[in-house]
Amino acid sequence: MTIRKIKLKISYDGTAYHGWAAQPGMATIHGTVCDAIEKLTGIRVELRGSSRTDAGVHALGQVAAFSIESPVPTENFLRALNHLLPEDIAILDAMEVPETFDPIGDTQSKIYRYTLNTEPVRPVMDIRYCWHRPGRLDVNAMAVAARRLLGKHDFKSFASAADTRESSVRTVLRCDVKSDEPWIYIDVQADGFLYNMVRNIVGTLVEVGRGRWSPEDVDCILKAKDRNVAGPIAPASGLCLMEIFY
Amino acid sequence: MTIRKIKLKISYDGTAYHGWAAQPGMATIHGTVCDAIEKLTGIRVELRGSSRTDAGVHALGQVAAFSIESPVPTENFLRALNHLLPEDIAILDAMEVPETFDPIGDTQSKIYRYTLNTEPVRPVMDIRYCWHRPGRLDVNAMAVAARRLLGKHDFKSFASAADTRESSVRTVLRCDVKSDEPWIYIDVQADGFLYNMVRNIVGTLVEVGRGRWSPEDVDCILKAKDRNVAGPIAPASGLCLMEIFY
Repeated sequence: MTIRKIKLKISYDGTAYHGWAAQPGMATIHGTVCDAIEKLTGIRVELRGSSRTDAGVHALGQVAAFSIESPVPTENFLRALNHLLPEDIAILDAMEVPETFDPIGDTQSKIYRYTLNTEPVRPVMDIRYCWHRPGRLDVNAMAVAARRLLGKHDFKSFASAADTRESSVRTVLRCDVKSDEPWIYIDVQADGFLYNMVRNIVGTLVEVGRGRWSPEDVDCILKAKDRNVAGPIAPASGLCLMEIFY
Repeated sequence: MTIRKIKLKISYDGTAYHGWAAQPGMATIHGTVCDAIEKLTGIRVELRGSSRTDAGVHALGQVAAFSIESPVPTENFLRALNHLLPEDIAILDAMEVPETFDPIGDTQSKIYRYTLNTEPVRPVMDIRYCWHRPGRLDVNAMAVAARRLLGKHDFKSFASAADTRESSVRTVLRCDVKSDEPWIYIDVQADGFLYNMVRNIVGTLVEVGRGRWSPEDVDCILKAKDRNVAGPIAPASGLCLMEIFY
């Protein structure tokens, strides 16, 4: 047996979890997937995830990788792990990758989708997967504001204080606001994201949508490089990590 | 104050509940809605629901009614009850109706929708609202079989043993099988339903879809008037009460 590196594509309903990252005594996606791998192989692997999604945030395309020396064939991991995992986590793909593969460092870009619902009464069968915010929003103004975030900027105003990374400069490749009443979808693709960046962007776009700010105010918010000038953070439930590009 | 009768249209994610009907010591939709009305008005009403949905079954159009002598205006019930109810139950409409309105007796017909997912890996964000059954099903054969259930028949073969109602004759007005890969939707409208009737119909249609039975076998199953000859019962999670017509 030689050491193999296995890359997993993972989907989850984050409602019941304290986010991706391992936390002592807390149910996390990372911990639950590690438990399943250990049940299958008898080995406690070091699982490295691409995105540290927050408590309540969902994923349809999280990527994680681990090295293992085990007789279990790679093609068996998908079905076996899905059998061992709880219903709200599922492996979409399991494949062998070169030992040099780094799920964080090799990332080219990621797409997140944020889902808003504007109906008067909450949608009970989607309430876990959206921000239910009754009342009209000016989707056109939100779309114009969103386009002002495109390109390379210092997104410090959209990073929560807990973010301690050195640089807050990121390149936003896509920031689309689409309406399909009573739903609004905000898709953000970037080469990297600061802590709570999408939820802070959405909170700001909603302020534009309800007319408190104009689309042009987004320029001032970017320039200020101050979290206090942007809108309030949008709830975790509306956020979903859609895809990671390598 | 005079006595008013109030009709509620109710939606719920049934996952966390032991069905509609009150059961001592169990969380039920009926009990939870009664609790909310009591918190609002101080009165424990007799709430009469149209359909006794089972544990895990959902609703987007349940109807219930109660009589009350309270100063709370009818137009306040919607917002106030939604504020008091948990996130997975929501009142869609509250209106005053004549004292003679009977949510069960006045029913003309009801529509249920059953949702199947045929993907290899379970859809984590829809798993509470479908039957995840990987593998191809012959949707055309299922649709042909479904049409054989249309009209007035004795549906005893599709009623679970717990059904103690005198007559098992019902009229099915609609029984449509639609495919939107990887989803299959089965819509059944009838003037009334026997206990577990839709789930037993779906279980039978799936046997046709996987080729175990032909569409014509449905005629024999109907004629047998014996629960043991129909297919296995489909899981509760896929079932949703869509609308009740008066």
